[in-house]
Amino acid sequence: MAERLLEEGVQVHMLAFYNPRRDGKGVERTSRISDVNAPTARWQFEIALHQGKIESIFLEAMEKHGLLVERPYFPTALEVSQDEAELKDPTSYPVKVTVQRVAEPSVKTNGDSQASHNGVQSNVFESNTVIQADRPEETEIIRAKFVIGGDGAHSWVRKQLGFKMEGETTQHVWGVVDLVPETDFPDVRHRTLIHSDAGSCMIIPREGDEVRLYIQLIEGLDNGVEGRLDRSKVGPEKVMAIAKEAVKPWKMDFPNPISWWTVYVIGQMVANRFSAHERVFIAGHTHSPKAGQGMNASMNDTHNLSWKIAHVLRGWTNIDILKTYEFERKKFAHDLINFDKKLASMFSEKAISEDNLDGVAPEEFQDLLKSMGGLTSGIAIEYAPSLITDNTSQSFAPGLMIGQRVQPQIVMRVADCRAFEMQDLIVSDTKWKLLFFVGDPKQEKQAAIVKRLGEYMDRPDSFISKFSPKNDRQAVFTMLIVSSTPKDEADYTDIHSGLLTHWSKAFTDDISVDRKSGGRAYETYGVGKTTGAFAAVRPDGYVAYISSLEGVVDGTVDKYLSRFMIEQP
Amino acid sequence: MAERLLEEGVQVHMLAFYNPRRDGKGVERTSRISDVNAPTARWQFEIALHQGKIESIFLEAMEKHGLLVERPYFPTALEVSQDEAELKDPTSYPVKVTVQRVAEPSVKTNGDSQASHNGVQSNVFESNTVIQADRPEETEIIRAKFVIGGDGAHSWVRKQLGFKMEGETTQHVWGVVDLVPETDFPDVRHRTLIHSDAGSCMIIPREGDEVRLYIQLIEGLDNGVEGRLDRSKVGPEKVMAIAKEAVKPWKMDFPNPISWWTVYVIGQMVANRFSAHERVFIAGHTHSPKAGQGMNASMNDTHNLSWKIAHVLRGWTNIDILKTYEFERKKFAHDLINFDKKLASMFSEKAISEDNLDGVAPEEFQDLLKSMGGLTSGIAIEYAPSLITDNTSQSFAPGLMIGQRVQPQIVMRVADCRAFEMQDLIVSDTKWKLLFFVGDPKQEKQAAIVKRLGEYMDRPDSFISKFSPKNDRQAVFTMLIVSSTPKDEADYTDIHSGLLTHWSKAFTDDISVDRKSGGRAYETYGVGKTTGAFAAVRPDGYVAYISSLEGVVDGTVDKYLSRFMIEQP
Repeated sequence: MAERLLEEGVQVHMLAFYNPRRDGKGVERTSRISDVNAPTARWQFEIALHQGKIESIFLEAMEKHGLLVERPYFPTALEVSQDEAELKDPTSYPVKVTVQRVAEPSVKTNGDSQASHNGVQSNVFESNTVIQADRPEETEIIRAKFVIGGDGAHSWVRKQLGFKMEGETTQHVWGVVDLVPETDFPDVRHRTLIHSDAGSCMIIPREGDEVRLYIQLIEGLDNGVEGRLDRSKVGPEKVMAIAKEAVKPWKMDFPNPISWWTVYVIGQMVANRFSAHERVFIAGHTHSPKAGQGMNASMNDTHNLSWKIAHVLRGWTNIDILKTYEFERKKFAHDLINFDKKLASMFSEKAISEDNLDGVAPEEFQDLLKSMGGLTSGIAIEYAPSLITDNTSQSFAPGLMIGQRVQPQIVMRVADCRAFEMQDLIVSDTKWKLLFFVGDPKQEKQAAIVKRLGEYMDRPDSFISKFSPKNDRQAVFTMLIVSSTPKDEADYTDIHSGLLTHWSKAFTDDISVDRKSGGRAYETYGVGKTTGAFAAVRPDGYVAYISSLEGVVDGTVDKYLSRFMIEQP
Repeated sequence: MAERLLEEGVQVHMLAFYNPRRDGKGVERTSRISDVNAPTARWQFEIALHQGKIESIFLEAMEKHGLLVERPYFPTALEVSQDEAELKDPTSYPVKVTVQRVAEPSVKTNGDSQASHNGVQSNVFESNTVIQADRPEETEIIRAKFVIGGDGAHSWVRKQLGFKMEGETTQHVWGVVDLVPETDFPDVRHRTLIHSDAGSCMIIPREGDEVRLYIQLIEGLDNGVEGRLDRSKVGPEKVMAIAKEAVKPWKMDFPNPISWWTVYVIGQMVANRFSAHERVFIAGHTHSPKAGQGMNASMNDTHNLSWKIAHVLRGWTNIDILKTYEFERKKFAHDLINFDKKLASMFSEKAISEDNLDGVAPEEFQDLLKSMGGLTSGIAIEYAPSLITDNTSQSFAPGLMIGQRVQPQIVMRVADCRAFEMQDLIVSDTKWKLLFFVGDPKQEKQAAIVKRLGEYMDRPDSFISKFSPKNDRQAVFTMLIVSSTPKDEADYTDIHSGLLTHWSKAFTDDISVDRKSGGRAYETYGVGKTTGAFAAVRPDGYVAYISSLEGVVDGTVDKYLSRFMIEQP
């Protein structure tokens, strides 16, 4: 899915800061720094793309797998069983949702609308209820195993469940306009933060020649704000007028039509609960959009949740793992809101000057953004120990941080010396990735270990045998071997067939044939080339467990997996 | 078009050599080296992909531009006018081709067939003859401005023109089989050359788990070969039997069906002429397929030719440039055949041994392949001076070798600090790329030069104004600016609007934001940061002309372009 994003999106690499000139004649550039400050991120830039386009990337990817989103449906009632036994039974359908088909042809996708229709996305895995899309205005009842409410800041699902929003609506009123300006301002294709005497302004480059202008509308408050803003009072003209002032002494005119605009009051809130009995879930929260985290955080919410639901539905995993969703994602939501509060208030304040010694110093602002690169890029997210995350044996691979995503690293595929990014091998296909760092199997000692691992896997009581369906030993786990043999000598045939399910699963830690990358995986992950290590990576790419290679065969790993995995008949 | 190739093709990174063991018990690996030895190549590997797939990539790319290949048509007559005036007039239609629609539904694409149907591809740019595809078995007459015969080793077009094939049919008979073997041979996913006592064998990995086996069928000659081989006498069983022997002591069995096979006698021939009056052209030659050059060379032939025809048809360029097609491509064809002769004979000989001191030494073979990396990858192709290629001022940019392609280099786009590969900027869109290495326009001296260049371009007598259609100043030339200002300070607004047609055309030579690439363009191209340089790159990516920046404004470049360009009304 990344390809279209990279192709169609705007890449934002740099962040420019403008502050008032000492002579009072407008602003000047005080610095230009890297926009993303997350050294371990695979892509060191942001991508901006119309939300409608992003949605279409998802919809098209789903279509390829035969999944369709049915629209427009409107939920009218939601009921969750209170029966403890029913709730605990993963095969039951304890949620009843009443939906009504809306007469209008389809819900228009407004790229960045803050408001959302009260849609409800039903998890229909194995559901026996089929919605008749061709009969309009019809009311239907869906009995579902699980329901996910991804219905935005004013979530209908959340209200039905009686969850409270914790946090506050701020006094910050913002206006946003997308258009192609006529300007000699040199930083319109960078993310730019302007603290001017005329007001604060953020510029974000958009697709083509378009630019997004974010302006703080100080006077907006005079209209009396209550939850939502009266948009008839503050319009795009105000935004453009302030932008024009803020970029002086450069020139910015607006001869072209506005392609989109909005005005809103920033809220910074998180729901007090994320699920009802782990049967109905909500995803997302609300905060200022300046860090670009609204949709990103929501997608990470559902990415965290969906593989867990899939495993429960397939009977592979105990239903208790669903509790880890709220546990893991609520902490992140709070971290994000805290950052957002700092950012929004610093952004709203005036810049420091002789008349305003309490104002924001350019360095302060820059440092905040730098320190938060890990959070906004998602790289630094760390899930705490839980049923599925066990950090007791971190020392075997200190660079594979338990609870965090596997860091990018280039490894060579042994059979054809093709370079692969580890993150591309750890694809989101709902399978656990078992990484075996086996050292150099050309050495006698390592060869013996590899043989022992292979023979163990072939045993009917190995965890692979126990936790995989008998007719598909590759359904739940993908085994990836990372050796340390130089590529000129390495042979994939050195890996025992019990461990190597296909030639394409054997890799080695060496530099690439073009000498441009690779050769640093053991070092980066902190794995000893003679001791080796084993890592279990969750289907969403987060490291869940580390052990020694010995732990694979002596029952240690089996014990860990048995905490939540179900033996297959 | 590269994306699908990279996605669907097999990447071949390494080349393994196997030779007889001293103890006589089969073969052993003597070395494994990088498969592509062309240090300046952008991709340091080969891609193997079914020819039918490659054809579909072309057909789909053409379809996007509204171009369709009509099949199956069979040419029955070809006539070229002898009228000198008509031949010189680019608006005339001096070629008459009679084609017959064949009744069969469509010509089956056989992935790698050596034989070819006698197809003829007609250049129908602006042709007023429309072929009626829905009337079968119909004979039609096409009057064309140009005709290209891309009809293979037994080209009907070539025979009609009475061109002779120069070269020879060798005594080398080869068998080829595609299939999925069952084997413990460790190098089936690398290109592998085996010199065994049982015979010579080349393994080429194919898509999925498939492998191509090339075997020299020594006994094939007993059947008496004349031009084409009697395929009923030597079949795939023979190929598989020799392969099985050649890989010993490893095991290779063939439980799976054969997906394709052929047997052929290698010919190494080039036509004595490539065109008749520069109105009918032929593309391609014939030689052994071991260097993978058959289709590659033909594609380069037509890549060389097509932009020239396009420019003549559009009235931008004198028809004389078409003479450079044969001039440039015939030399390459001969170089390739010479290489192929060496390769084929060395491959056919037995390996050196105590009994056979005249045999091929492994090092000899390896050295030949290494030295020829530039030729087989296409990187080292150098077109000699001609009407369009002028090497008089190479010294301003010794690293932009006149007659060769622009070497890969990463540069930063000034406006958004996004990294771009120069070769991606020099896209095959039929436009000349004018590269302006202007140094650092933040410096007074360079700023003055940039202003002067911009003001020159705005003049009605500049070469841009003269040689571009009045209603589209960007039709013929794309101007790309490469400055040397550090990216943190660079502003695209520093480039005069006469030179900079859009913000996206200004680049700078600095390291990328992620620090992984860039910053070596001036150094690699040999351009001085204070002197600067100008380069004219042909639409097919080959450097045609270099001058000083002064040469742009003082009429030197104008004089060069006037040799073949036509002033637009």
